[in-house]
Formats: sequence, structure tokens, C-alpha cells
Amino acid sequence: MAECIETLFRTNVRLEDVDTVRRIVTSSGFFYRDEVEVAASLVEERLKVGTASGYHFLFAEEKGTVVGYACFGPIPCTGFSYDLYWIALAGPRRGQGLGSTIMTRCEEMVLTMGGTRLYVETSSRPQYDPTRRFYERNGFRLEASLRDFYHPGDDKIIYVKLIKASESETPGPDNV
Amino acid sequence: MAECIETLFRTNVRLEDVDTVRRIVTSSGFFYRDEVEVAASLVEERLKVGTASGYHFLFAEEKGTVVGYACFGPIPCTGFSYDLYWIALAGPRRGQGLGSTIMTRCEEMVLTMGGTRLYVETSSRPQYDPTRRFYERNGFRLEASLRDFYHPGDDKIIYVKLIKASESETPGPDNV
Repeated sequence: MAECIETLFRTNVRLEDVDTVRRIVTSSGFFYRDEVEVAASLVEERLKVGTASGYHFLFAEEKGTVVGYACFGPIPCTGFSYDLYWIALAGPRRGQGLGSTIMTRCEEMVLTMGGTRLYVETSSRPQYDPTRRFYERNGFRLEASLRDFYHPGDDKIIYVKLIKASESETPGPDNV
Repeated sequence: MAECIETLFRTNVRLEDVDTVRRIVTSSGFFYRDEVEVAASLVEERLKVGTASGYHFLFAEEKGTVVGYACFGPIPCTGFSYDLYWIALAGPRRGQGLGSTIMTRCEEMVLTMGGTRLYVETSSRPQYDPTRRFYERNGFRLEASLRDFYHPGDDKIIYVKLIKASESETPGPDNV
């Protein structure tokens, strides 16, 4: 008999999330050690100064364990632009649509906060082919490449998605 | 008789530089109030955690008064890439070559610290035409544009300069 596992989402940030984020980002198998520490430091900064840090989080939990998360926030000195700093899933939860669910919920949060453009950066390394396909599948378009940005032969790829309220949220004649 | 004013450079950061940076950035007439505060906050961060902040400064002083400055640092998670976060001159000192002098000294510092690429970002607004020309004159090339990044109609323009030791620092047959 198939087991039905409920996924719960939360946006509050707890002390133990510093380690949670380290665990998720490490388990995704995608990131260097210094990148893992950068991811963890954003949680610390959020715990220290609250939402004034500019870091907002969405955690996906199953059976009391975080299985994926995203971190995003408004880009300073811009009117409506947001950065998706991190989105990562625990290894065993990859490839099952949870990433897209987290992404959709982040976009809804950005929209609620007044954002209309969501940026995400990734690497040109072949290891990131699935990541880039993930963004493209989720409606992001390639905006720019910065050659040799990370390392020689490793470019920074910048994607952007224009975020709008979904049709169903704008009642038209059919909904009245 | 022409007065000869000596320009002194320093890289250490003092408590009063928070206000100095506010003054310079405001007097340049180029930045919004929230941008001025971002500039000042980088000095505060540097004073709080030292060079671990990733923010390095170069101040140009004349007659004991700071007349221009730059702030730059290594971009996290990259091998050799640096960001020039700020370069600004007090209004009366613009257009006399001091900007290029500060830029050259920053490049030397970046090189010493192991950097080989220096990035700088600016706006596509007509107000920034002289800024973009300044970067181009100083050997930066246009690397990417992010449309409507700052505000609708106000793109982010990314320049990069590949930094190498100047010929004179590499003794060849002529120098031996």
C-alpha cells in the first residue's frame, strides 16, 4: 500500500536551521564547502537581525524533517527585483517535483512582497545542466553570462523570471 | 603661482570614514539615499569584522580631507573575481584624472591579493553616461546587461576588466 507523505511548508526560521541548511546543501551534492558555509551564514544573519537581513526562507518538511528549502530576498537599491539565493533539496527528494513546488511558493511570496522579477544565478559547468534545465522548465529565461566568473572555464549564468499574479487570482467574467 | 596639492592614499579604515563615505557619495550627486546608506554600511561592516568582511578600501586624501575613495573585494565562491563595489569622488574633484588614479591603485591591490578579474556594475540611465565612459576609458569592457534590473527602464550594466601585472613590473631584456 502506497504511503502518503504530507509536505508541510514554513517560513519562520529556527536556530537549528543553520545545521539543517548545511545538511541539505551538502546532501544535494552540488556545492563546494565554502558555498555550504555561505548558505549557512544567511540563516545566521536572518536569526541575528530578522527580516531586515533581506533573507527570507521557505522550508519544506516531511515527517518533521526538512527535505528542501529556498532562500530569497529583495535586491538592495532596486525597485522590484528579487534574488533567489538558494534552492536545494535533500538528495533523495530530487527529481520528484518538490523543487517546482518550492519555486512556485517562493514566487507567490515575492509577489506578495511587491517583487516582479526573480533572478537566479548558476554555473555553466556540465554538473549544473539539470539545474539550468530546472530553471528553464520553471519559466526562467537566460538573461546573461559572465565568462570565467567563478573560475577559468566556469561562467556565471543569470536567469530571470517575470512574476505575475496567476490568472485564477484575478477574477474575470467567468469567475464572477 | 600654482599651488601643488599632494594626494595621499591610505587603505586603513577609521571610525570617521562612515561619515566620510556618506559625504563623498552624497557629494558625487549620483546616488539615491538608500544607496548612500549601503555605501556607509560597508564601512561599518569592515570596522566590525575587519578584512574578513571582504570589503577593502582605498581613500584619497588632500590636505587632510578625503576627496575620493573606492571599495572592492573578492567575490565569495569565485577563484579570482573581485567586485569594485564603489568608486566615488567629491564633486569638486571630478574630471581631473583622480578617478583613474584610484582605479589603477585598486587594480594593483586586487592583483596583489590574487585577483585577475575586476567587475563593476552601473546603471543604464543617461545620468551614468560619464560613469560608463569612465570605465571604458579605464579598460573595462561591457560584459552583460540585465534589463529593467533597478527599475523599469533602468538596466544593470556589468563591466569587467582582466587585470595583469603591468609590463614594467615584469623585467624583460630591456630592464635587465
